[in-house]
Amino acid sequence: MVNKDFSAVLKPAAPDGATILANERARSSIPVEAFSRYLLTPEYLEQQNRILKVLESDPLFKKRNQANLARPDLYKLALARAKRIRQLKDKLGWDDDEYQMAATLCDDVLPYHLHTAMFITTVAQQGSEAQKAYWMPKLEAWEVIGAYAQTELGHGSNVRGLELEARWDPRTKEFVLHSPHLTASKWWNGTMGRTANYVIAVAQLLLPVSGSGAGAKYKNYGPHPFIVQIRDLKTHQPPDSILVGDIGPKYGYNSMDNGYLLFNQHRVPHDAMLAGYSRVDPETGAYTKPKNPEVVYGSLTHVRANLVMEARLALARAVTVAVRYLSIRRQFKDKDAPQDTAAEINVLDYPTVQFRILPLLATTFALHYSGKAMGELYERTRADIEKSGDFATLAELHSTSSGLKSLCTDLSANGIETCRRAMGGHGFGGGSGLVQLNNNYLAKPTVEGDNYMITQQVARYLIKKVRELAARPNSQATTRTEESLKRFLASKDKKLSLSVFTSDEDIVQAFEWRAAYLSFKAYEKREIQKQTWNSLLIDFYRLSRAHSQSILVINFYNAIINDSNTIPSAQTRSTLRDLFRLFALSTMEAEAREFYSCGAVSNEDLDAVTPRVFDLMQRIRPHAVSLVDAWAIPDFLLNSALGRYDGKVYEELFELAHRQNPLNEITVNPDYRTDELVLGSGDGGQILSKL
Amino acid sequence: MVNKDFSAVLKPAAPDGATILANERARSSIPVEAFSRYLLTPEYLEQQNRILKVLESDPLFKKRNQANLARPDLYKLALARAKRIRQLKDKLGWDDDEYQMAATLCDDVLPYHLHTAMFITTVAQQGSEAQKAYWMPKLEAWEVIGAYAQTELGHGSNVRGLELEARWDPRTKEFVLHSPHLTASKWWNGTMGRTANYVIAVAQLLLPVSGSGAGAKYKNYGPHPFIVQIRDLKTHQPPDSILVGDIGPKYGYNSMDNGYLLFNQHRVPHDAMLAGYSRVDPETGAYTKPKNPEVVYGSLTHVRANLVMEARLALARAVTVAVRYLSIRRQFKDKDAPQDTAAEINVLDYPTVQFRILPLLATTFALHYSGKAMGELYERTRADIEKSGDFATLAELHSTSSGLKSLCTDLSANGIETCRRAMGGHGFGGGSGLVQLNNNYLAKPTVEGDNYMITQQVARYLIKKVRELAARPNSQATTRTEESLKRFLASKDKKLSLSVFTSDEDIVQAFEWRAAYLSFKAYEKREIQKQTWNSLLIDFYRLSRAHSQSILVINFYNAIINDSNTIPSAQTRSTLRDLFRLFALSTMEAEAREFYSCGAVSNEDLDAVTPRVFDLMQRIRPHAVSLVDAWAIPDFLLNSALGRYDGKVYEELFELAHRQNPLNEITVNPDYRTDELVLGSGDGGQILSKL
Repeated sequence: MVNKDFSAVLKPAAPDGATILANERARSSIPVEAFSRYLLTPEYLEQQNRILKVLESDPLFKKRNQANLARPDLYKLALARAKRIRQLKDKLGWDDDEYQMAATLCDDVLPYHLHTAMFITTVAQQGSEAQKAYWMPKLEAWEVIGAYAQTELGHGSNVRGLELEARWDPRTKEFVLHSPHLTASKWWNGTMGRTANYVIAVAQLLLPVSGSGAGAKYKNYGPHPFIVQIRDLKTHQPPDSILVGDIGPKYGYNSMDNGYLLFNQHRVPHDAMLAGYSRVDPETGAYTKPKNPEVVYGSLTHVRANLVMEARLALARAVTVAVRYLSIRRQFKDKDAPQDTAAEINVLDYPTVQFRILPLLATTFALHYSGKAMGELYERTRADIEKSGDFATLAELHSTSSGLKSLCTDLSANGIETCRRAMGGHGFGGGSGLVQLNNNYLAKPTVEGDNYMITQQVARYLIKKVRELAARPNSQATTRTEESLKRFLASKDKKLSLSVFTSDEDIVQAFEWRAAYLSFKAYEKREIQKQTWNSLLIDFYRLSRAHSQSILVINFYNAIINDSNTIPSAQTRSTLRDLFRLFALSTMEAEAREFYSCGAVSNEDLDAVTPRVFDLMQRIRPHAVSLVDAWAIPDFLLNSALGRYDGKVYEELFELAHRQNPLNEITVNPDYRTDELVLGSGDGGQILSKL
Repeated sequence: MVNKDFSAVLKPAAPDGATILANERARSSIPVEAFSRYLLTPEYLEQQNRILKVLESDPLFKKRNQANLARPDLYKLALARAKRIRQLKDKLGWDDDEYQMAATLCDDVLPYHLHTAMFITTVAQQGSEAQKAYWMPKLEAWEVIGAYAQTELGHGSNVRGLELEARWDPRTKEFVLHSPHLTASKWWNGTMGRTANYVIAVAQLLLPVSGSGAGAKYKNYGPHPFIVQIRDLKTHQPPDSILVGDIGPKYGYNSMDNGYLLFNQHRVPHDAMLAGYSRVDPETGAYTKPKNPEVVYGSLTHVRANLVMEARLALARAVTVAVRYLSIRRQFKDKDAPQDTAAEINVLDYPTVQFRILPLLATTFALHYSGKAMGELYERTRADIEKSGDFATLAELHSTSSGLKSLCTDLSANGIETCRRAMGGHGFGGGSGLVQLNNNYLAKPTVEGDNYMITQQVARYLIKKVRELAARPNSQATTRTEESLKRFLASKDKKLSLSVFTSDEDIVQAFEWRAAYLSFKAYEKREIQKQTWNSLLIDFYRLSRAHSQSILVINFYNAIINDSNTIPSAQTRSTLRDLFRLFALSTMEAEAREFYSCGAVSNEDLDAVTPRVFDLMQRIRPHAVSLVDAWAIPDFLLNSALGRYDGKVYEELFELAHRQNPLNEITVNPDYRTDELVLGSGDGGQILSKL
């Protein structure tokens, strides 16, 4: 195609990206490697490097061309990669963390994901001892591949509204699974569309109360999990009583076979029902209640806690790309400088760009520390439950994880897009590395509890806490939230007018005060004025956001205080402080009216927040490249020409376009009067056959 | 694949979507068809219906499977469609409007787009009479296909920073086009990657001032347009001195061959330079200046004015889908109702959903009226320039179009995503019809002037107006903006405390007051306090947003007043009023601190805005489906299972998944111990060959 490729000798105009990033790194005294070890632990970094080498040496994990693939090929590629990662796990003896690291670095949505993430854990948590003994070895060995079939075409968040029925037939001692309507089709369930041969099907358990056969009457015991084979282990075909397939292309996750599944009077044996908590007696048909229903949402809580750390990684990827590229990219001369001699300005030095990117850089740290704190809280809660059956902290964990899931996935999803737009044209290009990240990450505000809907759980918890406090104002506070509500109750009519520019403690207190104020307001509207629940949903959403923001601020502040001996260097400590302030104050600026209304911050101080944010950005700017370097995200994972560690942005963009682009193999016939598309092929109908 | 398809007899659970939409339509007395005719004109609707029938009858325009295609096939499909549309234009005698309607309904990015949208218009506007006489017939007949090559790999918005050189060689009377660095590569230029055989190349014009050959010195006359052949008309191959190709996959616009282009000492004749405004004398090498440089941005202004109406259509598509689907979708029972008997609530009845969707519904009308007003202003300005050489209104038009471009493309881009997320899981699915819309539309905040950058032009204009007013406070105001600044100057120290709940005029005044307040503040900071330009960019951005919001509010209000005789029915007039108020007050709520700081609205009133917004949403809600129906967007264009006019959401989603999905033709081998992907194929390496 190319006769004489004169581009090979061309370089970018000086100074090139490599030179610029070297200068950026030289101007910050933050000890990047030590800071990385502090943030991520030496063990994590060693593991990442070791597994990175394995993946980089296997051509199956090359990412350059995958954006050109048709959707069926995207699935096949992901399936091949998923098999390879499991093969490598066996061969190299990886543990679950190492397997997860490989999946993260591969950065594809693996079609076996629901088997490992939901199917196995559900059987492990909800199966009886006998079921676990039978199934777990098969599942761990991937002898059967399972999916988790809960959501239906017509029913998502409201699990009680599911339509799939599991009717107990006492004569044959079988459950009859049946989808009464089209809307009862299972839908969205990952791994199920093409890959799985088993599912956990969540169905309404119907037990006969009188009569038999067609005239029988049933009582509904609500949704229960059933383990059901959906495809033959040899032919991989479903039986006649099951329709199953993939739901088609989506906004993202196109490597995943999200599925649909309909049952037509499909019979499964008695032991298909997972019986760890509730069971049906096969002889009498009597139902035994679950001992402790809370444990069911324990696992969802775990998933949500992980989402905070995932949000940090996703946002850190986008911010890494944005900070490096925007340091390199130059545009326009300073209008107040002599136009003949001035050089163009680095885009990251424009306030309109800093204002969008640097608060997000600060947000990555806020997410990190709350992700860590949530992980620790989850482990403590789990230990309490397992050791002593103590469910006391589960309600708090559930509320906190719901609120943080909502806030943090929004921060990341919106932040990735903000980074992409701040990068202008190249941010829209495939070389950004943010196309797939954005498309996939945008599922997060919806999955595992819609980000608006789940905020009701935070509000319910906080209203309950205010109610308890109102009933017993002198009782001992056992959590930080209770303390803060109690403090507010003691002096809620006075204006605090905290000193948010001179005291970091006051910043923290302002966030707690605002959340307490909104908690009391919600309590009053719901419990005193008896307003309807649904009319208060916007109040609840705002309350949850305020409460969750206060948690991010508290955890950030506590971490930099508690870790003051382990944070390497005074400069690092000082910059982390600035990042804390930038995160808190730019959040405060966006929510200024609430901070004013609750009396926490004066109008004059609120007017002064913007200049203070600019000061902080000036202080952080010289360290921006070092700070993103500290997240230690390998080029292999970034998969971004713009975000390359070495700064060779333009070289890589040109390489991708000129040498890695299958469209350039087509020679077009541009004459509209012929249907021929490829010159000399004579064929105009080929594309039509693919429609 | 399917043995016995028992799904054929299944229906959605009652009430189905068709029944629900019929009820929604019955409860509103808005005369939808008459309202459509008022909004869009009978001529537009007739044209849309006529051209729709043509496209619907041609299988090349079927959209169902296109999301499954590989990127090279997406381009081929778009090329085939673009040829077909031009063939239909010839055959059916379509004018430019009808051609544009076909392109809009086809809803693909047509690879010839830059030829029709930029190449032809640039030659027509900037060519000399001789050049136009030679080129225009060839261009109109698509005998050659051209692109517009301005943006470079290292240079976007700052046209003066372009690197491509056009050096005049007086000995041969040729221009020598040369790309001195990799960053000089043309980049992003649509139609150029594979389709075009010509380009307008924008290059720095360098004329020799002394010496000759290698020792010559040159003066730079800045960027100028050159018409350059880049591919052979027979072989479609570039000459050795040109490298050209497609830049690869992007966030959206993957049907378009955005290109790269490098020149290596490539020679073009003297008449390659478009000489309608400035020219080089071929004998003396002397340069003649353009008569009126403003005319150059006249065409960009036209593009920006169109962007407002495009923004309306894009947002109306998303809102149509969201309103119809969210009326049908049901989720959870009312927590305050008896749980046994209550039905699940329509999702559009949740405040958390209304709050996101109904203000966007109001925004579609705000965009519509300002799009119309901008179109009229453009035509008036153009007529003034052409008739009398009067450029007086061009500066105002340029400022207004810049600010509206920034605001309106942001409103639409963010609004589409808000609609998508409000639809939860199915909003993430391919059946939403918003995947391609979102991916393509997200280019808009960047193209034709980055949405942050171009707000400087609004600020520059307003600061100039304040400066003029400060110098001559008693001069006659000639525009509405000048009137508003004058009014503010007359009484800027008093608090207005307008009655925004009882007077629509006061709402309008509040928006104008705030914009005037910010204009004076910007003027003071820049011209009195002499703050640096770049330090004020955030102030300028906020000023532009405030000014542009006031224009949307003014145009909306004027339209419903001026059109009161043509708006059909009292209910329609009343609902349009409510939509105006909802748009204005929900905007005010989001910007409450500015409305307070400028003294336009009291704190008490600002606290009461949210309840008032809820009242308005209650009033609008019964008409929501009728209001989106009035936009008359055909199902063919919506291409959305969720947004179908007939409400058969679940039926269509299932149809797409179960019967229109190529991935379901694959039977997987799920055993990870074999590399075989498709069961029985034995082949595990095929996918690797595509990487």
